[in-house]
Amino acid sequence: MTYDVLTVGNAIVDIIARCEEDFLLDNNIAKAAMNLIDAERSALLYSRMGPAIETSGGSAGNTAAGVASFGGKGAYFGKVSNDQLGEIFTHDMRAQGVHFQTAPLQGQPPTATSMIFVTPDGERSMNTYLGACVQLGPEDVEPETVAQSRVTYFEGYLWDPPRAKEAILDCARISHAHGQEMSMTLSDSFCVDRYRGEFLDLMRSQTVDIVFANHAEALALYETSDFNMALDLMAEDCKLAAVTMGEEGSIILSGGRRIQVKPLKVDNVVDTTGAGDLYASGFLFGYTHGFELADCGRLGSLAAGLVIQQIGPRMQKPLKQAALEAGFIL
Amino acid sequence: MTYDVLTVGNAIVDIIARCEEDFLLDNNIAKAAMNLIDAERSALLYSRMGPAIETSGGSAGNTAAGVASFGGKGAYFGKVSNDQLGEIFTHDMRAQGVHFQTAPLQGQPPTATSMIFVTPDGERSMNTYLGACVQLGPEDVEPETVAQSRVTYFEGYLWDPPRAKEAILDCARISHAHGQEMSMTLSDSFCVDRYRGEFLDLMRSQTVDIVFANHAEALALYETSDFNMALDLMAEDCKLAAVTMGEEGSIILSGGRRIQVKPLKVDNVVDTTGAGDLYASGFLFGYTHGFELADCGRLGSLAAGLVIQQIGPRMQKPLKQAALEAGFIL
Repeated sequence: MTYDVLTVGNAIVDIIARCEEDFLLDNNIAKAAMNLIDAERSALLYSRMGPAIETSGGSAGNTAAGVASFGGKGAYFGKVSNDQLGEIFTHDMRAQGVHFQTAPLQGQPPTATSMIFVTPDGERSMNTYLGACVQLGPEDVEPETVAQSRVTYFEGYLWDPPRAKEAILDCARISHAHGQEMSMTLSDSFCVDRYRGEFLDLMRSQTVDIVFANHAEALALYETSDFNMALDLMAEDCKLAAVTMGEEGSIILSGGRRIQVKPLKVDNVVDTTGAGDLYASGFLFGYTHGFELADCGRLGSLAAGLVIQQIGPRMQKPLKQAALEAGFIL
Repeated sequence: MTYDVLTVGNAIVDIIARCEEDFLLDNNIAKAAMNLIDAERSALLYSRMGPAIETSGGSAGNTAAGVASFGGKGAYFGKVSNDQLGEIFTHDMRAQGVHFQTAPLQGQPPTATSMIFVTPDGERSMNTYLGACVQLGPEDVEPETVAQSRVTYFEGYLWDPPRAKEAILDCARISHAHGQEMSMTLSDSFCVDRYRGEFLDLMRSQTVDIVFANHAEALALYETSDFNMALDLMAEDCKLAAVTMGEEGSIILSGGRRIQVKPLKVDNVVDTTGAGDLYASGFLFGYTHGFELADCGRLGSLAAGLVIQQIGPRMQKPLKQAALEAGFIL
């Protein structure tokens, strides 16, 4: 078995509810960000949250599910606990056709949850309790799976739990030893603030070949407000990068070139949860299937544009069908 | 504290996924029905189910949440276990403003789940594992809550677990002793087949004052294919009834009168889950707020028409706002 894309990340069940803008202010939640919280604050925020729906989530998990939804072969490493939410997460990955065999934690802490508040503008603000994710470590790396994955992609978020970065460095050694590539997403501008030096090291040491970032993360990485400069610096620091800019589309940086990619036209943004994750899934599906970089970007735009028109980060309708309807030859 | 509507039912977390028509046939699932399943079949069907989303459900639970979404005062009796899905169910009821204090079961069996398959026509086919619901009994009746509830409403589904019917008979005694009213839904035509005699007894003994049914359930109750005759018989057997007919609207039977109610015009049925439950919530909200019966029916049509345009049986947008926008004065 070979895989197009193996992703590694925090395995999270999302709990999603709508709220008004004031709720974020009143509860000191950084808007559009991933706010890390402990069990106590998680209980407090849940007590203040409205009726919600639950869906499997987790940034890299969403990307693996997206690759599979396009018809690609996906694999995933991530740690749940052996509880009901862990069963749900595991089911949803496997039901999507993703290889997911990471041993669940036996007992506490529970499977990670992220309370996601969606404001009337469609923007999502996440509050993540890492739970069982803190146990992900090098023992969870399946060397054969890494060796057989064309691209191994991971979240910058993995620098939050204590030992996941060791797993990623192991993955990188195995991946590169087998002539495969490594990719990461910078995840979140606050996450970049926490681990800027390490992320730059990953890029400059060529531990990572392909970098995904959004506008805010690119600025945060280089501590600048000059987006053009951030793009120039990023182009020097990695072989290939894709930088998303919301409704402005995205820019691909490769071999001194800048390729502009248009966004999908979306009239009604329902919930931005998963937009970046699905962009990466489309891009990497295209990349591992020999598409031109511009078309990789267009597949990313398609997936991102579709996921923000529904609730939650896992596609309710197959991306393969959407791509065929959009004229792609898969 | 007084309540407009207390509802009693099987406390269930819904697991919802789309499927093709063939899936129902291949897996011997009765379409549009509630299929009762055991833990073993639940595990089997889950292994065959696609990626899903989770939401609190349960017929009467949806009705209580709907009453609260209109701005009414709702209460609920139902049994979850002290597990993660039970926490989710409890959260969603309380976050909607529903009084819900039934003691959770400590330990096994787990909180009930219903795997709901939604076919391309939007129809839902349910597969319910009753789990902790089998433990609901008379000890879960809060006499004060019943006494203070204008209407106590329950599901016919409660005749499936062993002791819930005892709880309902206790509720009826308390409710009527305090000059309040009892209401039930016939729930499902197969459920009517299972308990036809008992349901007719409940009506003819005036244990139940107000009956909700859909077209198929009304026919099943009187073992006829003559809808007109079923309506005549039902009008004799209870004081007030509301019979829904999908896209044909509904008919209210009261004091020898038949009141026709139009449906909400819906172009795109996404998921019919909760349509009947939400019809009852609108009707009972109106009924307990002194609306004319025709307007009770219109509030029912509004709620039912809105819930089938979204995924899952719990309203994502407040019904109060929708009712105000539709010109109701609440």
